[in-house]
Amino acid sequence: MNNFTFYNRVKIVFGKDALDSLGSEIAGLGKRVLFVYGKGTIKKIGLYDRVISILKDASKEIVEHSGVKPNPVLSHTKEGITKARQEKVDFILAVGGGSVLDESKAIAAGTLYSGDVWDFFTGDAEIKESVPLVTVLTVPATGSEMNGGMVVTNEETDDKFGLVAEPTQPLASFLDPTLTFSIPKDYTAYSGVDAISHCVEGYFTHNCPYAPVQERYVEGIVRAIMESIEKILEKPDDYDSRAAFMWAASLAWNGLTMAGLEGAGVPSHMLAHPLSALYDMAHGATLSITIPAWMTWAHRQGNDHIERFSRNMFGVDAEMGIEKMKSWFRKIGSPVSLSEAGVTGQKVDRVVEKTFDLAKAWDMDSTYSKEVIRKIYSFCP
Amino acid sequence: MNNFTFYNRVKIVFGKDALDSLGSEIAGLGKRVLFVYGKGTIKKIGLYDRVISILKDASKEIVEHSGVKPNPVLSHTKEGITKARQEKVDFILAVGGGSVLDESKAIAAGTLYSGDVWDFFTGDAEIKESVPLVTVLTVPATGSEMNGGMVVTNEETDDKFGLVAEPTQPLASFLDPTLTFSIPKDYTAYSGVDAISHCVEGYFTHNCPYAPVQERYVEGIVRAIMESIEKILEKPDDYDSRAAFMWAASLAWNGLTMAGLEGAGVPSHMLAHPLSALYDMAHGATLSITIPAWMTWAHRQGNDHIERFSRNMFGVDAEMGIEKMKSWFRKIGSPVSLSEAGVTGQKVDRVVEKTFDLAKAWDMDSTYSKEVIRKIYSFCP
Repeated sequence: MNNFTFYNRVKIVFGKDALDSLGSEIAGLGKRVLFVYGKGTIKKIGLYDRVISILKDASKEIVEHSGVKPNPVLSHTKEGITKARQEKVDFILAVGGGSVLDESKAIAAGTLYSGDVWDFFTGDAEIKESVPLVTVLTVPATGSEMNGGMVVTNEETDDKFGLVAEPTQPLASFLDPTLTFSIPKDYTAYSGVDAISHCVEGYFTHNCPYAPVQERYVEGIVRAIMESIEKILEKPDDYDSRAAFMWAASLAWNGLTMAGLEGAGVPSHMLAHPLSALYDMAHGATLSITIPAWMTWAHRQGNDHIERFSRNMFGVDAEMGIEKMKSWFRKIGSPVSLSEAGVTGQKVDRVVEKTFDLAKAWDMDSTYSKEVIRKIYSFCP
Repeated sequence: MNNFTFYNRVKIVFGKDALDSLGSEIAGLGKRVLFVYGKGTIKKIGLYDRVISILKDASKEIVEHSGVKPNPVLSHTKEGITKARQEKVDFILAVGGGSVLDESKAIAAGTLYSGDVWDFFTGDAEIKESVPLVTVLTVPATGSEMNGGMVVTNEETDDKFGLVAEPTQPLASFLDPTLTFSIPKDYTAYSGVDAISHCVEGYFTHNCPYAPVQERYVEGIVRAIMESIEKILEKPDDYDSRAAFMWAASLAWNGLTMAGLEGAGVPSHMLAHPLSALYDMAHGATLSITIPAWMTWAHRQGNDHIERFSRNMFGVDAEMGIEKMKSWFRKIGSPVSLSEAGVTGQKVDRVVEKTFDLAKAWDMDSTYSKEVIRKIYSFCP
């Protein structure tokens, strides 16, 4: 196992009454709040009114920043930063899914940084401090509620870049499973894929000779995700399975799946990001395409983790294990090939180019040349 | 799933070079440190000198409090509190196993409390604040390095009581697996049992209709513990298996195994504590006796978790699953019956009395009458 530091100070307030304590949690965070949300789903489910009322009861002065996109974009992030500075906000309350949380983190860090917030994403600057952030999660998937990670797309360059920084860990995140009842089946499925991807990336890529804690942990969480997603798709308003998935998605990307795993990378994400950056696909829908394709390539390269995962999870060999993953993604309604998503011909070339740019940005280009990237995509035609 | 709050702010610094950053971690914690340790094992392995040198390099003024017993006792805890107050220490550095860490937490809380520190254990007072605590772990087992829990024995009354409090969570814990190479085989085995007990207590006792995250998490960690303990017993200085077990033991009792599990209790611990309080047995050695006995009783009472655990872990039914646990405990050299530990005849009566006292203290006496307790012990004669 590699040396590591694990630090996750996010307080998780979980359950159907979670929001009851939001007011007391933000009491000491100052008067002026930047209330960040998306395109209005929270209004439809009554959450907007509830949050406004909680903020008013707590005597907060509210500055709204709405319209965060499902792959959050740099220009809107910068608008948020300008607003946060002009209005001198004391803290940020993010209410929404992973995109709203991610953009809020970028705003939280960018507000206190004199340079261009994109510097953090290109690696030209490091996040040293952040405006305090509290989140209310409405779409479990990305794990953003329990980590310091964020992904933002620069629309000018079509680059979808991500990073992880300790100062942007939320102080507290409120997880009420009843808020997720209305998530449609397709997005529920994509969320399941996303959470699974967070579990398996480290497992599949590390080069430790022995890592049973991380691997058995991952197998456990993936089992819980697959079980609970199936139950949700049968009965979308089943509290217990929504709750199970919501918590599993947080545990999938709170640092534990990767801690101590020397050499761990996120190749399936690297392959997936350009698909959503270029063709505006849901993040999870891109991952169900790239995960089995990458697994096939890696297994043929001699990666033995795929075999062990397949044995432990399904009692089958690697080839069959990959098929099991694919057929499960299909079963829940998430695509497993580029053509299903309309990405064919020259579009694939463009994806290869963009993926290679990302490989360079993430220092993964020594393994992932354009040829290798094209080869991997050839397994999900 | 039950509503819950999860908050664990302990920074884990893990690896063979972990102590290299101890000096910088304690830099901001003030000048005067209470250095707590046990009966001198840390001197034998050269750790004492190393810590003293780190503390001196960091210009700290050292107050030593040594001689913590394997089941830490109240009188020695009170001596530590007196010392911490008289010497006006700014923070506490605990170097040792779970007992040293537990006593250090009681000292950390007791130093800032005007009443009798035992009040916290009887439930007559609540821990509101604590002297900052940093730990260096030498014996992975109890998980104390990554939680706010502590267990102390009152020698005057033979009561071994425990509690969990957020303020006593260590600020940081340093986990260097090489420090555990010299732990003898019997204590390695007991440590494995202890860590397993922390995983299964919640799983076996909760009354949630559906809790796949916690259950699959537990199954994963237990698998990792069983795997790594077997490897350690074969090759005690194998870094990777020592590292795996060390990390697994932290994850076994950092809050995740219990979070959200309505009705979860710790009956195997309740049954085990009096054995070590009365007859000074190693904590793990008492648990390998009480866990299978309690499982047998619970299964016959209609508890269906034992069956599910047995199926998922070993592919067998509950009766066979209990046998599997027992034979694994035997295999690693931990006792599975009272008589093996010399507890027979009137000694059993005394254990029953003491266990019932603990059941009352922990509000578990409505289920665990003296008759029930005697019945459970009859399964491990």
